[in-house]
Amino acid sequence: MPHTARGKRTTEPVRTCWKLIVAYDGTAYGGWQRQPNAVTVQELLETALARITGQNVTVQGSGRTDAGVHARAQVASCECVTRLRPVALQHALNANLPDDVRVMRVTRMPVGFHARFDAVAKEYRYQIDTGAVADPFLRRYAWHHPQPLDVRAMRRAAKWLVGRHDFTALSARTGTVERGKVRTITRLTIRREGRLLTIAVRADGFLYKMVRTLVGALVRVGEGKLTAEALRELVRTCRRVPVLETAPAHGLILWRVWYR
Amino acid sequence: MPHTARGKRTTEPVRTCWKLIVAYDGTAYGGWQRQPNAVTVQELLETALARITGQNVTVQGSGRTDAGVHARAQVASCECVTRLRPVALQHALNANLPDDVRVMRVTRMPVGFHARFDAVAKEYRYQIDTGAVADPFLRRYAWHHPQPLDVRAMRRAAKWLVGRHDFTALSARTGTVERGKVRTITRLTIRREGRLLTIAVRADGFLYKMVRTLVGALVRVGEGKLTAEALRELVRTCRRVPVLETAPAHGLILWRVWYR
Repeated sequence: MPHTARGKRTTEPVRTCWKLIVAYDGTAYGGWQRQPNAVTVQELLETALARITGQNVTVQGSGRTDAGVHARAQVASCECVTRLRPVALQHALNANLPDDVRVMRVTRMPVGFHARFDAVAKEYRYQIDTGAVADPFLRRYAWHHPQPLDVRAMRRAAKWLVGRHDFTALSARTGTVERGKVRTITRLTIRREGRLLTIAVRADGFLYKMVRTLVGALVRVGEGKLTAEALRELVRTCRRVPVLETAPAHGLILWRVWYR
Repeated sequence: MPHTARGKRTTEPVRTCWKLIVAYDGTAYGGWQRQPNAVTVQELLETALARITGQNVTVQGSGRTDAGVHARAQVASCECVTRLRPVALQHALNANLPDDVRVMRVTRMPVGFHARFDAVAKEYRYQIDTGAVADPFLRRYAWHHPQPLDVRAMRRAAKWLVGRHDFTALSARTGTVERGKVRTITRLTIRREGRLLTIAVRADGFLYKMVRTLVGALVRVGEGKLTAEALRELVRTCRRVPVLETAPAHGLILWRVWYR
């Protein structure tokens, strides 16, 4: 059992399953998933692994993040034949990655572990810079929204969204066909800290562009252009409605992924 | 008196003195002061003012920041003939500046106000990322120092530095000739918040590269390579000594400037 041999040098290369915790500033990338015409984080990791192991390694993410979206702790899984120990693999990966993508932790997992299929919950955070003038240090990591927001109204609306719902109204028109549109939001908080407003959403899963549409809807409520009750009705209709706009990508951060 | 006519449109253009609070991400710039072969923040502001007013306007900063150093609230002063109100000037400036430089506030001042000569105190903050792997979101704003630091020893050493001293030992060899080397540090704190260690230094003035040399010295103490007592003796000798290294520029932020 190679995954119990932690810290010891194994003599024979063995097929090993890895769990990688990856942090990235998404500003420069076309998102997580490999695609033509844009550098993506999956591609950077696969290229680094190919260089390190000499093998074609597929890296699975816990989910895709769109172009410009960041991750504090994206989880990825992969398998390769190696005798590298976790810390050595981590160092080798970081030595082969640009400094806006960092592997924060590497763990051996039982073969078969899959970052997407085995995830049971995820948290995203969305940052809004509410200052009159955009803070240059937040310009890549927060949506600048200088118009006043009624945070109490936003919190009232957020309450309605917690729980098990069909979130069709909050998913993008396009995107892949998914197992139904029912998800359970277990936690949705809105915290103000100085100029920064942070919306944290935890759920058992998310539809395509769901967090950004949800944030767009809550901001509409905060602007007084939509009532908490109207938002609840929109969700109940289970139809994607044009009134809901998608908040920009650069304010979104994949914060944490949970496994059993 | 045009500076009392706040909020009202003055009909005649008048000579006005301005105080600008400027925040910038220094990553892309050759520092504050205008120079050949590098874009600087002073130059960006002067170019923007020339475009807005049609005049050659000199902008004075409260002090120079070196290449790569950031500012949360640099203060600048300038004079020009205009009938623009403060908010209009602020908008015009921000419309003519890149998004990593923002004018956070514009105030009318009595003619003669000078951002450097009238400053009575300044605070710099220095950020150190102490995590094993560099946080990609801090990579531009904190010095990555993964080796363990004895923060208690650093705080002990910091105590000796507070007060009125000749700081020759902590100033760079090069740089302009300055009025003596005696400065008064009124506050020096070291705060840990997760992986981030923040050293805040407030003084009536700073010598060339003084904060970065002071941080370099405190980090040496934290590494156990220099004792608090030895650092005190180094400062007492009033000689620049080779044992002290300068901490990298990108961890430094000009935090605040005080005026009478």
